[in-house]
Amino acid sequence: MQKSYDIAVVGASGAVGIELLDVLHRRSFPISKISLLASARSTGKRIPFRGQNLTVEKLKESSFSGVDIAFFSAGGEVSRRFVPLARDAGAIVIDNSSVFRMQPDVPLVIPEINGGDVAAHHGIIANPNCTTAVALMALYPLHLAFTVRRIFAASYQAVSGSGARAIAELQQQVRAAQDGRAVEVEVYPHPIAFNVLPQVDSFLSDGYTKEEMKLQNESRRIMHLPEFRASVTCVRVPVYRAHSVAISAEFEKLVSLDKARQVLAKAPGLDVLDDPQHAVYPTPLQAAGRDNCQVGRLRIDSALENGLAFWVSGDQLLKGAALNAVQIAELL
Amino acid sequence: MQKSYDIAVVGASGAVGIELLDVLHRRSFPISKISLLASARSTGKRIPFRGQNLTVEKLKESSFSGVDIAFFSAGGEVSRRFVPLARDAGAIVIDNSSVFRMQPDVPLVIPEINGGDVAAHHGIIANPNCTTAVALMALYPLHLAFTVRRIFAASYQAVSGSGARAIAELQQQVRAAQDGRAVEVEVYPHPIAFNVLPQVDSFLSDGYTKEEMKLQNESRRIMHLPEFRASVTCVRVPVYRAHSVAISAEFEKLVSLDKARQVLAKAPGLDVLDDPQHAVYPTPLQAAGRDNCQVGRLRIDSALENGLAFWVSGDQLLKGAALNAVQIAELL
Repeated sequence: MQKSYDIAVVGASGAVGIELLDVLHRRSFPISKISLLASARSTGKRIPFRGQNLTVEKLKESSFSGVDIAFFSAGGEVSRRFVPLARDAGAIVIDNSSVFRMQPDVPLVIPEINGGDVAAHHGIIANPNCTTAVALMALYPLHLAFTVRRIFAASYQAVSGSGARAIAELQQQVRAAQDGRAVEVEVYPHPIAFNVLPQVDSFLSDGYTKEEMKLQNESRRIMHLPEFRASVTCVRVPVYRAHSVAISAEFEKLVSLDKARQVLAKAPGLDVLDDPQHAVYPTPLQAAGRDNCQVGRLRIDSALENGLAFWVSGDQLLKGAALNAVQIAELL
Repeated sequence: MQKSYDIAVVGASGAVGIELLDVLHRRSFPISKISLLASARSTGKRIPFRGQNLTVEKLKESSFSGVDIAFFSAGGEVSRRFVPLARDAGAIVIDNSSVFRMQPDVPLVIPEINGGDVAAHHGIIANPNCTTAVALMALYPLHLAFTVRRIFAASYQAVSGSGARAIAELQQQVRAAQDGRAVEVEVYPHPIAFNVLPQVDSFLSDGYTKEEMKLQNESRRIMHLPEFRASVTCVRVPVYRAHSVAISAEFEKLVSLDKARQVLAKAPGLDVLDDPQHAVYPTPLQAAGRDNCQVGRLRIDSALENGLAFWVSGDQLLKGAALNAVQIAELL
């Protein structure tokens, strides 16, 4: 008989929460009971799950009694306050915020890469940043083959990474621009429709954004590579779903295109789309809604002694968030 | 008394041609006579210029008799056939195609950088690739201060770089997507609405695109730096106008942020927009329609020993094409 679990989903009505329910369903996760939790704003919403209509309940300090696994994707403030309470109530927390990711006693896990780290948890496991997850799905197999030293990367990030309000903002701005009306700006500091913004998350004193440094710092923990360096520019683009990253990676061992293709073709959770002469390469529209990330545009890097340039796309709501969280739960 | 010139504009009804007429007007270029030339498809079109309505004439072998300066922006095929004819008829040709850019006897010129090279022309002067022009407006002043070795770059290129049909394609695809209709694909191999495409121009056998290698090879000629290396990913984004480029640049001399800001602030044709804490940085919407390129997001590069990361936006129809061409004509 398979064990089944009492599950809580915090942020159930958000962009990631909805995907999480879908992934739990699709992967037939063994659930005995499920509570959907959210802020007062969403309380009472009805959300369909496995043929029932579940009601979103207000998140409270007492919400986690009897819960085995709690998924958090309601932002940093909610995680900071409620994750310790859930853990103290006996739940194992899989947290999608950045609050606990760099704490040494909190494993930061991509199951295909460092699933073994889950074992060392003390009640909290962190889900990585979405851009980091998408990039590492391709970089890590290459690292195993060639040993990565550093990368130069630029991202093309979808608005769904900023949640449901950002999706609505892009839709509204596109309509306003088409009708010749003034574009209203609320979620982002500048219009995102027919524009790109070289800002994701807030700025640090060194001029990088938090999002940009996550790709370096989280990758170090996930790949167990404390010396790994990344120079990243994170850019929001008018795409609804799926992030893409252009990467130049420098390696220690001699890189060959054949071997790179070979290891990527065998890598779990990754599809190689690389026949550029026939316009076959990853794009966010093709990656949206898919569990697997996609890699293509493979080429020997023209500015590195021993490097590879490539392009990755991946659905950041799935591999970058919901799918990865459920995969972590499956490891438990 | 100022000399004035007999001018021909080939490709006058195209996206760049229209801008060229506007730039000639705005900069009060001394014109005694102007002929608008195009393929049979556009012959007979009326185009306003300085209060008159000029008629587009069919481009013929005999079109260049008496012409002093001929601007070409009608694509590679037209340039390949008609540029030599125009030169042999006695015109000085300023060509916006890539056909002659790498010929040693054809100067490839950005006036702010290597205006002096114009003097060595033999009747043909090449206008650089648009992404190259935008990137070098910021990179070259930094090179003068610190001596550039190589760059890693990723571009965010507007659809107007592919001409008027691509602009229409984005508009139509956005409407179709909003109405839930099937998106039709014609100019680009995949939908560009709410998507990004890691392909600009065609692919070379090494896996880079022609567009990507232009940034290395044209930069070498323009900056007189035959050893300069660039690893570039060129990406089309759903933006109507103005290209952007994220750059990590490695230098020989010690880089300081203060000195970088200083030299960029003094650089001709460039505005520094760099106060990220107040969301001040270049975006394509802000750069569109402006003669000056914009640079921001300056930071000491986190993955280079001696590098600077930055972000440039520039109107590729202006600095990347029409403005630069007229600036070359002004040097003559």
